[in-house]
Amino acid sequence: MSQIDAVLSSIDANLDTSIERLFELLRVESISTDPAYNGECKKAAEILVADLNSIGFDAKLHETPGHPMVVAHHDGPEGAPHVLFYGHYDVQPVDPLELWDEPPFQPSIKEMPDGSKQMTGRGTSDDKGQLMTFVEACRAWKSETGGLPVKVTIFFEGEEESGSPSLIPFLEANKELLKADFALVCDTGMWDRETPAISTALRGLLGEEITIQAASRDLHSGMYGSAASNPIRILSRILAGLHDEKGRCTVPGFYDGVPETPDEIKEMWAGLGFSEEEFLGDIGLSIPAGESGRSVLEQVWARPTCEFNGVIGGYTGEGFKTVIPAIASAKVSFRLVGTQDPLAIRKAFRAYVEASLPADCSVTFEEHGASAAVHLGYDMPEMKKAATALSEEWGKKTALTGMGGSIPVVGHFQEILGIESLLVGFAQDDDRIHSPNEKYELKSFHKGARSWARIMQALAE
Amino acid sequence: MSQIDAVLSSIDANLDTSIERLFELLRVESISTDPAYNGECKKAAEILVADLNSIGFDAKLHETPGHPMVVAHHDGPEGAPHVLFYGHYDVQPVDPLELWDEPPFQPSIKEMPDGSKQMTGRGTSDDKGQLMTFVEACRAWKSETGGLPVKVTIFFEGEEESGSPSLIPFLEANKELLKADFALVCDTGMWDRETPAISTALRGLLGEEITIQAASRDLHSGMYGSAASNPIRILSRILAGLHDEKGRCTVPGFYDGVPETPDEIKEMWAGLGFSEEEFLGDIGLSIPAGESGRSVLEQVWARPTCEFNGVIGGYTGEGFKTVIPAIASAKVSFRLVGTQDPLAIRKAFRAYVEASLPADCSVTFEEHGASAAVHLGYDMPEMKKAATALSEEWGKKTALTGMGGSIPVVGHFQEILGIESLLVGFAQDDDRIHSPNEKYELKSFHKGARSWARIMQALAE
Repeated sequence: MSQIDAVLSSIDANLDTSIERLFELLRVESISTDPAYNGECKKAAEILVADLNSIGFDAKLHETPGHPMVVAHHDGPEGAPHVLFYGHYDVQPVDPLELWDEPPFQPSIKEMPDGSKQMTGRGTSDDKGQLMTFVEACRAWKSETGGLPVKVTIFFEGEEESGSPSLIPFLEANKELLKADFALVCDTGMWDRETPAISTALRGLLGEEITIQAASRDLHSGMYGSAASNPIRILSRILAGLHDEKGRCTVPGFYDGVPETPDEIKEMWAGLGFSEEEFLGDIGLSIPAGESGRSVLEQVWARPTCEFNGVIGGYTGEGFKTVIPAIASAKVSFRLVGTQDPLAIRKAFRAYVEASLPADCSVTFEEHGASAAVHLGYDMPEMKKAATALSEEWGKKTALTGMGGSIPVVGHFQEILGIESLLVGFAQDDDRIHSPNEKYELKSFHKGARSWARIMQALAE
Repeated sequence: MSQIDAVLSSIDANLDTSIERLFELLRVESISTDPAYNGECKKAAEILVADLNSIGFDAKLHETPGHPMVVAHHDGPEGAPHVLFYGHYDVQPVDPLELWDEPPFQPSIKEMPDGSKQMTGRGTSDDKGQLMTFVEACRAWKSETGGLPVKVTIFFEGEEESGSPSLIPFLEANKELLKADFALVCDTGMWDRETPAISTALRGLLGEEITIQAASRDLHSGMYGSAASNPIRILSRILAGLHDEKGRCTVPGFYDGVPETPDEIKEMWAGLGFSEEEFLGDIGLSIPAGESGRSVLEQVWARPTCEFNGVIGGYTGEGFKTVIPAIASAKVSFRLVGTQDPLAIRKAFRAYVEASLPADCSVTFEEHGASAAVHLGYDMPEMKKAATALSEEWGKKTALTGMGGSIPVVGHFQEILGIESLLVGFAQDDDRIHSPNEKYELKSFHKGARSWARIMQALAE
């Protein structure tokens, strides 16, 4: 049996214990955005450090002002490339809790009518299940060969779902510790259930929270109705004014730096067999809501967006209360492409909001991250090697795709560490990441580990 | 000592025990809009029944599909008028709880820097403190004279703060039980701290809750952003579209039946010494937000309004979550004047909302009450008697005022029982009803009871 076949067999043979290790990590409630879960975040990091040390890495927990980082080193053969593997152990909040079929932190395996199996629970797909695919690949390489085919530094973050406040300072202070030839980032998805994918473009993300204050206290609408400014009315006007009739964002200068998608890219996408009807139909919709005149694929992969992620004000409980609230607030995010400048857009957005206020009302802003878009080279030699390894595992040609989500770390790796990233992941579009009933296909987990085992081998050649 | 002087002295002498009786009622958490407090609502009704029986009324609790009604009878002298006294024992919800200086259901008395005293807690002003002013006046009449100067039916409702779903059926089924010559309704305020008032006009109220559904589940904005409809965006457009640039409501036909305020009424109001600067300044504002070209007094007393009382959608916790929610909802209320038809406006509002939706999104409506405005005659003889009695108690001429709030029961008394209402109350503009830190002036409570003692006497003459 060749080395790689032995490694793949080891992954197959040890699948059950791999799942148990992942479930231990999934049971930790590492919600990074809510300080109530600080202890759980630390616990997740400690579990990873212990596991990596147990398979021969030199792993350490690094404290930050926020949640800790995990960094682990393992040497490779003389002359082999040095890869930096990135994942994040923190997860999204779980509300609305009542929409979960099972408790979000009690992972289980569910057999589907088609015979496939899903691992359910918060973090299964985003990103604990994904990062463990790489750890399991390393474990199998170690147990079968005593070493790894490449030099590996593993870097796990615990603040990806909360704007990564500690990331840039940590990267800047630890360039030597994180030095590598290129990065492997596992936080993306496959093209479909059968077809592996490598993402070649990532949108940036700007997060803003605005809180409008009108009166100094909540008011009775019978006594003050219409005479007193209503912050929900002001907020609604501000939000409603952020898109024009064609679905374009109205923030001045928003489209500066937005490139037109080249025809050859559009042609490649057209060949992917993407169905707008199915994509929208799967989520109960049928009419694309983005910029008119653009395909859905272009809307989600190549165009910038302005979305409202949360809004709250006044009485929101059962029944009715005729109150005019003192404050109302919204969380607004912008996905950025090309060379759009997140800080310039933040400034223009805030100026727009301030100009929309009556003179006796006020606004406070809270920032939730600002990262520019990243475009990766289609011609990296490592991309070709990884694409071939993925095709061998899945029996389908690897799709080189754009991607709607934002993985700011890729831009930071470029700027601070000076390295490119390969984005390989095994999530499915219907994994319900950030939603109730998040799941990860058992096949994604199993063949994901096998894929990394193959990719490591391919990169060493 | 004349009879009335003895009654007034009795009220003075027994103020402390009156307060203790009120506090017992205030400690009951009778939040009618939230089913979790059903038992508390019943308990408040039972306390009132027991108290009224203890002073010689024939009081009974009447079950309804919602919260119980309290009806109590007491005979009067031959030929004396028969009054129906109305109040409500239910209260508004207390959130946001963290803004209360004291627990809302642990009433206390606070001495202010100017030496005045305030009773603090939910329901002190709206409406438990107010309804007890009448009960205490009856108690004093009974203890000093053995009877009441007029025939009295007391009617306490427990659903005023939740749209009064049982009120109309109960009135219709109990016309004989509630028969009287006219009603006394104690749920309004004074003109200012020194000047008593009788309200002569009440706005109607239409409450609507709309819930917009876009996708069938919460989505990750990176994966679906801009392509999938965002219900917060749809809702914001709907709300923002409900007022035009001049602050007028855009619902088609909304102003049908809205009368222009007669010049003589405007002149009377102008003589009241109302200061827009002070009214708005007291709540931290300076710019009237209602229809342009109308005074603030006209905006709150004589014009219809459209207000947003609550809005919620998406992630509203700490931090940030890049979700596109499946649903977003808002509570919208309309204050109505003149002959505006609440049902026609509901229909037009719903048609507007439905026309604002993309074809693949949907809306559900929940109704929260619909009552037309009420205008009371300035020339009722009882109004003159009550105004004189109030002037004697307070030493100031009674103001005949319009009123911003809505007391639907007054219209129902007109339509179903065929009787007019006298609206007399002792609340102050700064009582923070429906808000945290609700209070009622001890002076309102004490002189309120004295006022009713005098009014009963005046009505008998």
